[in-house]
Amino acid sequence: MTLDCELRDADEPLLHADDMAALRGDGVFETILVRRGRALNLEAHLKRLAQSAAMLELPEQNAQEWRDAVAMAVQRWGDRREGVLRLVYSRGREYAGSAVTAYVLVSPLNQRVHQARSSGVTVISLERGYASDLKEYAPWLLLGAKTLSYAVNMAAIRYAARNGADDVIFVSSDGYVLEGPRSTVMILRGRELVTPPVDYGVLPGTTQRAVFDMADEHGFQASYAPLTVVDLLNADGAWLVSSVALGARITSVNGIRMPEPKLALDVARLIDRAVEKAD
Amino acid sequence: MTLDCELRDADEPLLHADDMAALRGDGVFETILVRRGRALNLEAHLKRLAQSAAMLELPEQNAQEWRDAVAMAVQRWGDRREGVLRLVYSRGREYAGSAVTAYVLVSPLNQRVHQARSSGVTVISLERGYASDLKEYAPWLLLGAKTLSYAVNMAAIRYAARNGADDVIFVSSDGYVLEGPRSTVMILRGRELVTPPVDYGVLPGTTQRAVFDMADEHGFQASYAPLTVVDLLNADGAWLVSSVALGARITSVNGIRMPEPKLALDVARLIDRAVEKAD
Repeated sequence: MTLDCELRDADEPLLHADDMAALRGDGVFETILVRRGRALNLEAHLKRLAQSAAMLELPEQNAQEWRDAVAMAVQRWGDRREGVLRLVYSRGREYAGSAVTAYVLVSPLNQRVHQARSSGVTVISLERGYASDLKEYAPWLLLGAKTLSYAVNMAAIRYAARNGADDVIFVSSDGYVLEGPRSTVMILRGRELVTPPVDYGVLPGTTQRAVFDMADEHGFQASYAPLTVVDLLNADGAWLVSSVALGARITSVNGIRMPEPKLALDVARLIDRAVEKAD
Repeated sequence: MTLDCELRDADEPLLHADDMAALRGDGVFETILVRRGRALNLEAHLKRLAQSAAMLELPEQNAQEWRDAVAMAVQRWGDRREGVLRLVYSRGREYAGSAVTAYVLVSPLNQRVHQARSSGVTVISLERGYASDLKEYAPWLLLGAKTLSYAVNMAAIRYAARNGADDVIFVSSDGYVLEGPRSTVMILRGRELVTPPVDYGVLPGTTQRAVFDMADEHGFQASYAPLTVVDLLNADGAWLVSSVALGARITSVNGIRMPEPKLALDVARLIDRAVEKAD
């Protein structure tokens, strides 16, 4: 489905060979869970998409056009199964001037997501190479923008798989936990949920944010604070939070087992309610 | 032109909406100058493409198929004008299994290239965020692979433009000159050409390498050594070396002017001969 609401067959080519999405990863995206015929937490995703686009100096898009395209795609997908909705927005063809590329795409959930939800994930921590204070003075590094340039994220996940782990936690060069390649890190201490600060150059998590907004109602506190890998291991629970897998409990870090938290079910319920109620 | 030598109209869509090139920048590429009906320095580019692909764990491609596709594309382009040839190789569609995407694409040179060749470039130095010793222990960061994830490179060039400069020199977090977002840095000291070491995580330059291989014949020495921005300013000349612009002389760094080198013409001739004779 293109942003002008033209429905396309996913098996027909859509993009030109010189689209900057493909040639340079020069664009932004969002991934959204479709459940019971709704795109969950859509407004937060549209807001972040617009923020990412601004960081890449892409022209501002009309949010209503995205909403319309999403509504049509979701209706077409139906309400009988979950789906993964992608919003993709690139600079367009190489010499296209101001003609950007924008489309939405729905696909089935893959097996990994079901596995992460039900059994949790084992993770390894990997150096991201950046210092935690880099974001403020180096806007050209696009830290905190969700760009189409995800080759490093994918390589980190493959590296983890080769080493027997399901996922990755990136750590800054000065030793702080940053984020997963496709998730936000969230830990529990007592009844306090803690996530690394956004000014460390991590992506602002849409699902984590919805959870924080509703934490109080469920009897949890929520805060942003610097975390180390040791903090993770000493926590009363740790999760990779994301739009599609929602809360994937971390069952081990660098081979060290993390026992099932007492409040695992309460946190799972909070995450679920938060994304259902977010819009 | 796809790798199975099927000729396509550039104005017809080629890629699927879920190609990993577009969704994740998950692939590799090369950019090659076409001149007088030849793809210059092709073998070096094919070698680097294969190295990049290996770093991304993409299946090995048959080099002869690339050569055949390039030959057809170049023949079609003709010998009357220069062209920019792109080799693009991605992981293929999201759930495609082992079916990768591979194609070549020829376009005209843009005005920027002609300008860089004739008048040189003004540059600013920008922090890349990585330490110079990161490459050896963090293979998941894909340092030295030419991936389709170039959003940061493009953002750095836009940042430079906003600040009145034509191009960028990336500097490591420990203060060493790395590379341009689309070029290799090369300086001249006396008659010695110097480039930063590849183990600093920079892309191995195909054009710079061809120049180094032929330096001796032209009465130059060539070596790899750590460089700082001060070394650039104190040099007897500095260039951004790349496959299409070839040698773009650096005329200022961070607003500080660099006078025209005495040996500018000799270096230009060396670069030109090197890429013409490379294969």
